[in-house]
Amino acid sequence: MNKESIKQIPHKTIERLSQYRRALLLVSAKGKTHIFSHEIAEIQHITAVQVRRDLMLIGYSGDLRKGYKIQALVELIGQIIDSPSGQKVAVFGLGNLGMALTHYLSGRRENLYIVAAFDVDEHKIGQSFEGVPCYGMEKVKEIVARENITIGIITVPAEEAKATKNLAIEAGVKGILNYTPVPMEVPEGVFLEEYDMITSLEKVAFYVKELGSSDLENTKRTASK
Amino acid sequence: MNKESIKQIPHKTIERLSQYRRALLLVSAKGKTHIFSHEIAEIQHITAVQVRRDLMLIGYSGDLRKGYKIQALVELIGQIIDSPSGQKVAVFGLGNLGMALTHYLSGRRENLYIVAAFDVDEHKIGQSFEGVPCYGMEKVKEIVARENITIGIITVPAEEAKATKNLAIEAGVKGILNYTPVPMEVPEGVFLEEYDMITSLEKVAFYVKELGSSDLENTKRTASK
Repeated sequence: MNKESIKQIPHKTIERLSQYRRALLLVSAKGKTHIFSHEIAEIQHITAVQVRRDLMLIGYSGDLRKGYKIQALVELIGQIIDSPSGQKVAVFGLGNLGMALTHYLSGRRENLYIVAAFDVDEHKIGQSFEGVPCYGMEKVKEIVARENITIGIITVPAEEAKATKNLAIEAGVKGILNYTPVPMEVPEGVFLEEYDMITSLEKVAFYVKELGSSDLENTKRTASK
Repeated sequence: MNKESIKQIPHKTIERLSQYRRALLLVSAKGKTHIFSHEIAEIQHITAVQVRRDLMLIGYSGDLRKGYKIQALVELIGQIIDSPSGQKVAVFGLGNLGMALTHYLSGRRENLYIVAAFDVDEHKIGQSFEGVPCYGMEKVKEIVARENITIGIITVPAEEAKATKNLAIEAGVKGILNYTPVPMEVPEGVFLEEYDMITSLEKVAFYVKELGSSDLENTKRTASK
């Protein structure tokens, strides 16, 4: 695919490509070499048509009898999603969530490295967690510039969310992943992705309530997407 | 709204209603009493048309000059989303992520309580975290039944994900929020919501790469939804 067509890929497809890769890596680790669209669809709780449409969009077609080659598909998704030179990530706020994310994301993708964490806690500053050094907030500009960090994951307390986001962007961060409960604004040229845990929990709670309140049918797993 | 029409509300609308409430509570805490659809839209990085459509769907219309009454809208969303009797939640896996979620969700919503955590770590079993008691995994059935826990948040390590999910469902949990990197299957009558942090991070990384690689325009905040 050329650069122009990569840019045209819808956001939702990018998300799903990331999820397909995750699923492919899992089944590949179990020794599988080929997979059918309906198998990917089952893992992801979506339709096989959706899977085929997404993969056609990135120019990949499988063998009708044998399915898709897992390794080739993983590589193709990597070519689209990943930056060839890799991208560096910093975690802002090394509380429980910051630590969980650092632990979870460390070494999981070849091209995405968490290289720094920032916190206000003097017991954490100067220490390393999962091999990631923790710095004080006054070091943000210096470290972001020196390490060429382009992505910031914000997990500071709500009161600090806005100031921390501003600091990260001033320092040169181009993508923000906001895990605080505070909705954010970012200037043009910066990409923002927000995730609030309460929304996921409320969604589950709503469907559990509705499942319980009546003879509701076929909500099941299809409801998860 | 009657029960039948509540059930017809699309999943995406339920998610947005939860997000609207979150935004409304934040602006309300700042002393605001009325809000326009375009203001909600701005906070959520979506269109005002979308906001109006969602609120019309739940039968709410604002005053053209003054906007929506925040308090009334918060209450209406609560009537739709929340269970009047409340719902009880358990966290499976009290590692960093489990602790972060417990801390984050404790006391944030009147009708959703985390009442138990389960872990295998003997140092945690018998202790309380944020007022939530931690039990061993062998207690799952007993505690879920006794407390009438309907929702399980799964944050155990990947290797334990499937067994823990099965245990939770056998014990009577009707809604699963899966934070492990392992895609899950649930039987009919159980609602599943999955969130993988790597997908959010890869999405941000992709757009940062594309922003950096060219004269890409108007990706900005609209890209976050």
